[in-house]
Amino acid sequence: MKFSMERATLLKAVSQAQSVVERRNTIPILANVLIEAEGETVQFRATDLDIEVVDRAVAQVERAGATTVSAVLLHEIVRKLPDGALVSLTEDSAAGRMTVEAGRSNFSLATLPKEDFPVMASSEYTANFSCKASVLRRLFDKSKFAISTEETRYYLNGVYMHIADGEDGRALRCVATDGHRLARIDAEVPSGAEEMPGVIVPRKTVGELRKLLEDDDMDIAVSVSETKVRFATPDITLTSKVIDGTFPDYSRVIPQNNTRRLEVDANEFAKAVDRVATVSSERSRAVKLQLDEDRLVLSVTAPDSGNAEEELAVAYGDEKLEIGFNAKYLLEIANQVDRENAVFLFNSSGDPTLMREGSDTSAVYVVMPMRV
Amino acid sequence: MKFSMERATLLKAVSQAQSVVERRNTIPILANVLIEAEGETVQFRATDLDIEVVDRAVAQVERAGATTVSAVLLHEIVRKLPDGALVSLTEDSAAGRMTVEAGRSNFSLATLPKEDFPVMASSEYTANFSCKASVLRRLFDKSKFAISTEETRYYLNGVYMHIADGEDGRALRCVATDGHRLARIDAEVPSGAEEMPGVIVPRKTVGELRKLLEDDDMDIAVSVSETKVRFATPDITLTSKVIDGTFPDYSRVIPQNNTRRLEVDANEFAKAVDRVATVSSERSRAVKLQLDEDRLVLSVTAPDSGNAEEELAVAYGDEKLEIGFNAKYLLEIANQVDRENAVFLFNSSGDPTLMREGSDTSAVYVVMPMRV
Repeated sequence: MKFSMERATLLKAVSQAQSVVERRNTIPILANVLIEAEGETVQFRATDLDIEVVDRAVAQVERAGATTVSAVLLHEIVRKLPDGALVSLTEDSAAGRMTVEAGRSNFSLATLPKEDFPVMASSEYTANFSCKASVLRRLFDKSKFAISTEETRYYLNGVYMHIADGEDGRALRCVATDGHRLARIDAEVPSGAEEMPGVIVPRKTVGELRKLLEDDDMDIAVSVSETKVRFATPDITLTSKVIDGTFPDYSRVIPQNNTRRLEVDANEFAKAVDRVATVSSERSRAVKLQLDEDRLVLSVTAPDSGNAEEELAVAYGDEKLEIGFNAKYLLEIANQVDRENAVFLFNSSGDPTLMREGSDTSAVYVVMPMRV
Repeated sequence: MKFSMERATLLKAVSQAQSVVERRNTIPILANVLIEAEGETVQFRATDLDIEVVDRAVAQVERAGATTVSAVLLHEIVRKLPDGALVSLTEDSAAGRMTVEAGRSNFSLATLPKEDFPVMASSEYTANFSCKASVLRRLFDKSKFAISTEETRYYLNGVYMHIADGEDGRALRCVATDGHRLARIDAEVPSGAEEMPGVIVPRKTVGELRKLLEDDDMDIAVSVSETKVRFATPDITLTSKVIDGTFPDYSRVIPQNNTRRLEVDANEFAKAVDRVATVSSERSRAVKLQLDEDRLVLSVTAPDSGNAEEELAVAYGDEKLEIGFNAKYLLEIANQVDRENAVFLFNSSGDPTLMREGSDTSAVYVVMPMRV
């Protein structure tokens, strides 16, 4: 194998690969990237056995072939090479080495046989559809904060992507929850996705997927089966196993009859929550909300260090209410609001609260209260 | 005590205080800042018993007085207040509280009695002089990387500031070393510093001092005694104990007769060292330098992962030489060079190497070689 490539192109191709490989793993070849050169294309493939990423780039291929080298090391080397450099990669299979040359720099890296590299088995996908990058980005960006980190509830360690009945007909929906808060984000059903099986996309896959979604207008090819999901751009294919479990029936958690309505500038609200929470150093910092006629008082009491209180002018016309929340949870949902005011719908101080952006029902958040 | 102050002024005054307090300490009052309001001035004082910082700011003082509150908490609160806010601080000594008010935000913080706050004993200083901030910054910035972190060699855990015989007469000199490398930086002796006792300024003090030196043309008042050093601007006074020990006779370490001269672009050199060091993941990465007629080859051999080599065009006209260094040490000294080419003076591969900037002898670095 022998080919050359401009440094920036190579860096881009290798960077997604090195981010998929696990830093700590006991199987040496999983630290490596499989490089395959053929025709005018070079493929870079990396896997952690759950996720596989394949990045394709055009190169001047002098001699076809394939080998594997440390993904992190190759990435570090390419990153440090000067901008604009032409980089040559040459395999010396007899010596078990691959050289990387650029200008007067010369690296010789240990290789492992390409035959040992675990390539993910191909699948039959039951649904194939195309979706704008901006749509997928919204679905996952607005839901991922609620993914559970509790390993025992492994079926909550991802975003549940499925087809559901939304407020305006069928919807492509992403849901995540950790039992304390929940995010439910809807988008139009893309053509071909109607019969898609629901899948739980693991947290790490959500993170890797994000890197494919920078270009708003890019069409992303999505394929879904009961066990796998695949996202592809013309250059990159990301394939991932999905979480083997049943996502709980979240619809029962979403309050339908909350009538006390608070409307507040989300940015002002988030800043005020952050300020009053300062006095408490505990991890689960409780913020008390006291609601009265067009008036919200946020307060925190920390016996050791002090108290904090802040008043906000809001729109509220219902019965007085006192309710407490984890400050971090309130901040996270308030930070999802990007266009309009945040609208909170409360029931009693013991019931889950619903939050949405203005009257938009395509992004709905639920947060459980805590005693204060 | 009751006063008000613009948020930005208060933030600046509190931020240096909170950086001096130790995050983990067993004496509660050391976490606090002593706030003293009198006349038109408020003083903020913090200490870790070795360093004391006093920050003065003009305020509208309504009621003179003094109290202490958590420095970190006060800093966090002020930081989160909106820009431009007018902040009022009011002590309620009966309740043992201090309130912080700004707009509709209201904080009530626990206080500790001002009487319990340890104020550093005042000293007789044997030398008092004035020095431009830019001069002090150069002296400490260029030497501090070489401060030892070995606690058993406590006398190396700081920068040795003293008066010495420089290449062009007497000099105000800062020296730091960890036994593997050494930095010796000279400046003109300021008037009044001639009889200054040599003092070892502790690492933390060097860090805190740095924040006083942002404004190039600011005159810094420096006072030195056998046991303490003080740096003052019109607003801030930083007093520190010095390390109670004897700095070793460093002059013997500085090679006088190294004749093999290498001149190289410091930036290119640093980048090349960084690149070849990539292949080795060990902490003490050895880089080999092979010198020949106007040619430098840098190389690293890492048995597990591979080799790296890079050639640089340099100015070298002496006998061939092979010499090894710790990559991190080479990088750190090369990064000190900001104007001219780096000039290395070698003797043999087992002897300390000297580095300076062009022909400038006011900043000299020594680095020990390692076997490669």
